[in-house]
Amino acid sequence: MKKISIFLLLFCGVLNAQPNAEVDKQLKSIYSAALLEGQSYSWLDHLSNQIGGRLSGSLNAERAVEWGKEELETLGLDRVWLQPVMVPKWIRGTFEYAHIETSPGNTVNMPICALGGSVATPLTGIRAEVIEVIDFEELQSLNKSDVSGKIVFFNRPMQADLINTFESYSGCVDQRYSGAEVAANMGAIAVIVRSVNLRLDDYPHTGSMSYGKLPLRKRIPAAAISTNGAELLSSMISLNPKLRFYLKQNCKNLPDVQSYNVIGEITGSEKPDEIMVVGGHLDSWDLGDGAHDDGAGVVQSMEVLRLFKKINYQPKRTLRVVLFMNEENGMRGATKYASVSRSKKENHVFALESDAGGFSPRGFSIDTTPKKLAAIQSWGSYFEPYLIHMFVKGGSGADVGHLKTDANILAGLRPDSQRYFDYHHAESDTFEAINKRELELGAATMASLVYLVDYFGL
Amino acid sequence: MKKISIFLLLFCGVLNAQPNAEVDKQLKSIYSAALLEGQSYSWLDHLSNQIGGRLSGSLNAERAVEWGKEELETLGLDRVWLQPVMVPKWIRGTFEYAHIETSPGNTVNMPICALGGSVATPLTGIRAEVIEVIDFEELQSLNKSDVSGKIVFFNRPMQADLINTFESYSGCVDQRYSGAEVAANMGAIAVIVRSVNLRLDDYPHTGSMSYGKLPLRKRIPAAAISTNGAELLSSMISLNPKLRFYLKQNCKNLPDVQSYNVIGEITGSEKPDEIMVVGGHLDSWDLGDGAHDDGAGVVQSMEVLRLFKKINYQPKRTLRVVLFMNEENGMRGATKYASVSRSKKENHVFALESDAGGFSPRGFSIDTTPKKLAAIQSWGSYFEPYLIHMFVKGGSGADVGHLKTDANILAGLRPDSQRYFDYHHAESDTFEAINKRELELGAATMASLVYLVDYFGL
Repeated sequence: MKKISIFLLLFCGVLNAQPNAEVDKQLKSIYSAALLEGQSYSWLDHLSNQIGGRLSGSLNAERAVEWGKEELETLGLDRVWLQPVMVPKWIRGTFEYAHIETSPGNTVNMPICALGGSVATPLTGIRAEVIEVIDFEELQSLNKSDVSGKIVFFNRPMQADLINTFESYSGCVDQRYSGAEVAANMGAIAVIVRSVNLRLDDYPHTGSMSYGKLPLRKRIPAAAISTNGAELLSSMISLNPKLRFYLKQNCKNLPDVQSYNVIGEITGSEKPDEIMVVGGHLDSWDLGDGAHDDGAGVVQSMEVLRLFKKINYQPKRTLRVVLFMNEENGMRGATKYASVSRSKKENHVFALESDAGGFSPRGFSIDTTPKKLAAIQSWGSYFEPYLIHMFVKGGSGADVGHLKTDANILAGLRPDSQRYFDYHHAESDTFEAINKRELELGAATMASLVYLVDYFGL
Repeated sequence: MKKISIFLLLFCGVLNAQPNAEVDKQLKSIYSAALLEGQSYSWLDHLSNQIGGRLSGSLNAERAVEWGKEELETLGLDRVWLQPVMVPKWIRGTFEYAHIETSPGNTVNMPICALGGSVATPLTGIRAEVIEVIDFEELQSLNKSDVSGKIVFFNRPMQADLINTFESYSGCVDQRYSGAEVAANMGAIAVIVRSVNLRLDDYPHTGSMSYGKLPLRKRIPAAAISTNGAELLSSMISLNPKLRFYLKQNCKNLPDVQSYNVIGEITGSEKPDEIMVVGGHLDSWDLGDGAHDDGAGVVQSMEVLRLFKKINYQPKRTLRVVLFMNEENGMRGATKYASVSRSKKENHVFALESDAGGFSPRGFSIDTTPKKLAAIQSWGSYFEPYLIHMFVKGGSGADVGHLKTDANILAGLRPDSQRYFDYHHAESDTFEAINKRELELGAATMASLVYLVDYFGL
């Protein structure tokens, strides 16, 4: 029986770490400080409502950089600095407009927005018949001559019966990202893409797109249409396949401009060369105020360092917050940060990103070795009082993913995903869509994992 | 080693049920049907926007009863009926108004609402000094002569650092429920109670209150004040302890009226005498449209039976949906249903309530024997793909709680609780605060547990 007990003990050890009153106490301090004296919500109020949407290269992005640096400087960190990085500058321009021509002289306005990176239409707009398809395969099965001179309408909806909405997103986003390239190669003169949104509503959702290797002269305008608009357009095409769509937009790509990652750090007391990063991206799309994407991640990451100061926890390892620039349309901040860190031979033992919205946290997606993953999973019991239950193997985040090594731990905060795509890249992504407690719980959950990694070491 | 393996197997068995492809498939069907072809959201749209707030005894409550019966009759159930029950009728009246008199002739309006069951003020209102207290203990430590003739202001906020907001609610609700009784016994002439809300905003939140054994002539008016109002009032009292508060309301208790529980059932194919109940409450407060409390629970419970029909699952046991009347201010529907079922010697083996809002489901709170609780917990792995992780020992719900026996299983759906008290009993509890997917996931989660109880038996 003794043997069995030892075996069981080992077995249980994999499932749950041994009780540790100090750890329990620190996690309680972290959550209490976040919920009772948190600063993330008022920071986000400022970033969303006083600054607003902050697309890379914009004046607002500059203001956000200044604000981030100033706020980090109030926290008593050991070092705060700006890391220069050149970023693309795309501007939406002064008009975006579309309608369906239901019969000569009769039109119905359509809610659209240009996709980020798209070229403009001619000043007089584009007026053409529409080919509706569900995916690239369907489009490429058509005769080029049937597509030529027309507008391609990609109308594949998000799959509603997937529980994790990010999976549904992955299943649709190709039409937004590469639709224009594929359609241009078939002779189309513009693309309209169904917004990547699970709701039926009137908001067009923008997002990045790429023309791949398409030469400049072959690039065609790309716009997103709201889900309601897509449904209406589709039903009207089924009534009249010859109907014409009119689209006009004057967005523009300008030369790269100077911008910055904003960085602050608490130097580690015992292992200063081992760096732990928390981060989100400071840029956002221009339509809403970027409260969920990724204002939430920015203020939660800043809050991790503030909470450590608040509870008087001095990390053994260096804890760095990085507010990455240009995640949305270029990832220049993340690649710059990673390349500088490589050239300095910095050792990033851990990096945690929050870029999935400021909703109730459920856990983490973790990218590391099986052994380290199991160790983190064994800490699950410490998180039980806070209803944090997901410690799954998976991707970390678009920004910290660039720091991957064979041995380190990358992770992404995983909030409840049900509402995220209601707001993602749309005018509806505003501060009003944020719940204070949900935001604060996310910050506390991040701080707790950082604390555990630092306390136990891995 | 063999012994160890068997032991481990048994040990693991407690943690996780054996894989069962049929169960996996049925749960997938349930979730897919709820998310792809669900009816809960459009039902709730009707109940919230076409009917609206439906306080017991009101015309809207009557309309909700008719609507519930008609909708259940469309589902092809074996039986649908109304169970008569007399309910209290309290009406808010035609005015509620309050202000602070900051100096003679200068007033600041205060957002208040009468608590459900409160008596009116005199027609000319009540104007008096205010005594602010944090709890009954503080109030009762004062001299009666200092309280006499004054308005008592209960200002204990919800505790923000509890993760489960229902715990914070429990820690505050006594001042709303019994504040008037306690204050009247100290000689107060009215009570103002801080709204049970974690946010700082302008909505007063109503809710039930009781005068206990206080005779009619000793009853004093009770009103809730918004959290912002409470903060302002408190700070103004600290500047001027002699300030006067003015309160006017003409709510009224009327004689009981006839109403109904709405019930529908699918007769069990093998064990028709074993009854499984799913339910929520059809009445709501009158301020919002009761979308979260408890329109969500109503439509989710109806949806459970519709989903079973949709996936062609014929339960072995009788499955009954009960839309309880009068949960909010009397619990008459639940006590009537329980007493009728006792007199008929009905055997309720399982009852599941949804009355915690239409938010992302996290799991269940379960009230049963340790053995049955462990069995349900062993099904956790079936729920993993749906991110359902809470199977905790605890209370079920205010309505189904009346069906408790030594052997049966009572349970309550536990959605994410962070946002619930933003809306609870306030004008802000409207359909717009509902997310379609979160609502649908709740319905599917309920249907899945009912299915498992029926499939495995307990």
